Amino acid sequence: MTQHEGRIGRYVRMVAQPGQGDALAEQLLHVADSLRDSPGCELYIINRAPDEADTVWVTEVWASQEASDTALSQDLADAGIGGVLALLAGPPELIDLTPMGGPGLR
Amino acid sequence: MTQHEGRIGRYVRMVAQPGQGDALAEQLLHVADSLRDSPGCELYIINRAPDEADTVWVTEVWASQEASDTALSQDLADAGIGGVLALLAGPPELIDLTPMGGPGLR
Repeated sequence: MTQHEGRIGRYVRMVAQPGQGDALAEQLLHVADSLRDSPGCELYIINRAPDEADTVWVTEVWASQEASDTALSQDLADAGIGGVLALLAGPPELIDLTPMGGPGLR
Repeated sequence: MTQHEGRIGRYVRMVAQPGQGDALAEQLLHVADSLRDSPGCELYIINRAPDEADTVWVTEVWASQEASDTALSQDLADAGIGGVLALLAGPPELIDLTPMGGPGLR
């Protein structure tokens, strides 16, 4: 049985240590910039939560699980993901998705 | 004081009545198609939840609150949002976002 190689998505919720929401968002925007040319990275949008100053949500869409695994293991290390992890109050929470279609999806 | 007119985003979680997840996703894909040319609609992506057959998440980004209000009041009525609501097991749950940047954001 071959592994399914379709498009995958994810919402990732990260909560910074108190007062570190700005720093977390800034660091994640650097990560996002470093992913701009990664093969199979279709969306990697950094979002603030208007009512939670220390929360940042990342909206991800990848061409395949493999593209996601490759980029997140290689590019994120280069892009300072260590700096992101150091700012967090706890582990990221993930909501896994299977994108089906709609405006903005390639 | 003028209202802030920046970009807004939203994750919308909809849960269908038992066994109606496919129908809900199908109906929402029609809504998404009808929004393709709506002014200010930057993302309106329909996602299945791989582990919850009756759950559909919509990833939205709009150029402004006004663009969102206009499209969702006019275009959704035309696009059969009534059919969506009839399939739901409960009211949609919203996570409000302020998109900051990253690949896939215009």
